[in-house]
Amino acid sequence: MDSISCPFPFQQYPHVLLAHGGGGKLMQQLIEKMFTVAFGPKPATGLHDSTVLNLPTSKIAFTTDSFVVRPLFFPGGDIGTLAVNGTVNDLAMSGARPLYLSLGFILEEGLEMESLWRIVRSIKTTADAAGVKIVTGDTKVVDRGKGDGIYINTSGIGVIEHGLSIVPSSVKAGDVILINGDVGRHGIAVMASREGLDFETTIESDCAPLNDIVSLLIKAGIDVHCMRDLTRGGLASALNEIVQDVSRTIQVSEAAVPVREEVASACAIMGFDPLYVANEGRFIAFVPEDQSSRALEIMRRHPAGQGACRIGEVLADSRPVVTLTSYIGASRILDMISGQQLPRIC
Amino acid sequence: MDSISCPFPFQQYPHVLLAHGGGGKLMQQLIEKMFTVAFGPKPATGLHDSTVLNLPTSKIAFTTDSFVVRPLFFPGGDIGTLAVNGTVNDLAMSGARPLYLSLGFILEEGLEMESLWRIVRSIKTTADAAGVKIVTGDTKVVDRGKGDGIYINTSGIGVIEHGLSIVPSSVKAGDVILINGDVGRHGIAVMASREGLDFETTIESDCAPLNDIVSLLIKAGIDVHCMRDLTRGGLASALNEIVQDVSRTIQVSEAAVPVREEVASACAIMGFDPLYVANEGRFIAFVPEDQSSRALEIMRRHPAGQGACRIGEVLADSRPVVTLTSYIGASRILDMISGQQLPRIC
Repeated sequence: MDSISCPFPFQQYPHVLLAHGGGGKLMQQLIEKMFTVAFGPKPATGLHDSTVLNLPTSKIAFTTDSFVVRPLFFPGGDIGTLAVNGTVNDLAMSGARPLYLSLGFILEEGLEMESLWRIVRSIKTTADAAGVKIVTGDTKVVDRGKGDGIYINTSGIGVIEHGLSIVPSSVKAGDVILINGDVGRHGIAVMASREGLDFETTIESDCAPLNDIVSLLIKAGIDVHCMRDLTRGGLASALNEIVQDVSRTIQVSEAAVPVREEVASACAIMGFDPLYVANEGRFIAFVPEDQSSRALEIMRRHPAGQGACRIGEVLADSRPVVTLTSYIGASRILDMISGQQLPRIC
Repeated sequence: MDSISCPFPFQQYPHVLLAHGGGGKLMQQLIEKMFTVAFGPKPATGLHDSTVLNLPTSKIAFTTDSFVVRPLFFPGGDIGTLAVNGTVNDLAMSGARPLYLSLGFILEEGLEMESLWRIVRSIKTTADAAGVKIVTGDTKVVDRGKGDGIYINTSGIGVIEHGLSIVPSSVKAGDVILINGDVGRHGIAVMASREGLDFETTIESDCAPLNDIVSLLIKAGIDVHCMRDLTRGGLASALNEIVQDVSRTIQVSEAAVPVREEVASACAIMGFDPLYVANEGRFIAFVPEDQSSRALEIMRRHPAGQGACRIGEVLADSRPVVTLTSYIGASRILDMISGQQLPRIC
């Protein structure tokens, strides 16, 4: 699907106008000549206010996420890849098989139509890769200066086809915490791109769908207790959210958490701690100790889990804190971030 | 649920900060001390990336809508009431029983926390009235000058518990078109409020949930062929969208379309045609001629349908146009709006 295949009249309308969100002819043209070109033909029954779906089961997961990342395009992805993978991953973290996404655009008057088409293509490609369909959408346009090019909301529906209860309260003392790879790349990629920083090696976002690797774990019979993807606030915030619901101490070894050398250097230069930096293709899984080696093997065989490793465990101690054992063996509390380390990273 | 019942520290944080969307302590405080106060306690299993739901059936409707109305508060409603009723109504138009909504906030740095709380309460009250639950959410904050106070996305899931196929392609020649009341109030209410216009009578938005009146029609066995709510672009655009999918001529009588006197006057002053002005509690239903009187009776017994009436019919002619018979008996084509009559009305 290249630029040429889009019948939208880019020369006539090189930029988004307020009328493209007004419910009239221009909005209809945008939908028919751009969106339905990417996301599939108009249904034979006609476009309607909502989409009727027959699910394979009535036990579902439902989630929503808005994306306001700046800049819109960055090494390793763009706001479109984020918008799909972010919601796919939120569904996967409940052990659901993601099936359907909605797509809500808030466009700023003046956005280049070519940029919109690039993002639409990216959404389509990413959705295909993750095995999900965009089934319903909405477009609004706000006046120039009241947005930032484009904001995207995706909501998602997935089906739950197993008997596990993958939630914080299922975490038990003795559980082992696994991660599927190195941390900090997404946040640093976006920040470097935003600030125009040029490192020796271009750091690319780790943005990736996690539903496939998760389904392998579940299908293999791993008794996954909880999972969480490491987005805003990074690994440290995800662990802190979970300890609060679990009322157990989590112990993590700093040396065990993989950080690429170039990410560590960039963090040192910019004054960030990679444990707090956002990722978009990383998750932690809480699994019983006696299944952890097998779970790691499964993860490592998948492209999204080649760098998988064990980073810590859940203690019997009921204090809801995360302790970090440093390289030199000292232990300190790894707190939730109090302010905003990296704004508008997703 | 009044202001006093909210434990959020308004004095300490009178305005939204970037950190309220940063994934750290401040965001957690906002969620726990404001959002979960309104939308129900944190589940015993812990807050998670997506919400697991057991639906009563696996045939569902799914829809999404973003809301960017300006101003945020207007006579008869606010962005919160719109965000709930808009999505509830999109589900109802497919004949679905709306059950669950997601809620995505894009907040602008500097928004008054008291305004946010007022909107949150409004969402809660409106959701309760419509019988839907907010089950998952997301909050992002964009820098000052990159938003307009607040944008809201709601996506919704409803269940379909009947055998009708309520879609444009079900419309047949001979169908009668019913409307549930007068048109044009929402758009005029918002526009008058935005422009500071002071009419003799305050025109209030018609914003209302339509799921209940729709379910009465379906339960009574009315063979509803299609429905559509009359939002952006108004009655004229809704009719035009449908004729394109149906390939039949629709004939509407101008005199039959109810318009309140004050709305007609305001439209005359501002240069609008009420047939193109947005509504948020109005819909049209296509029903077989021989059931139309009974359908009207049912609608009129409901508070949302007291002004229900017949406005037109579907002809056997296969030209996909909407013709309007004027007060003096002349007939003209009622086209889809080409530009943007009223920007940011929803």
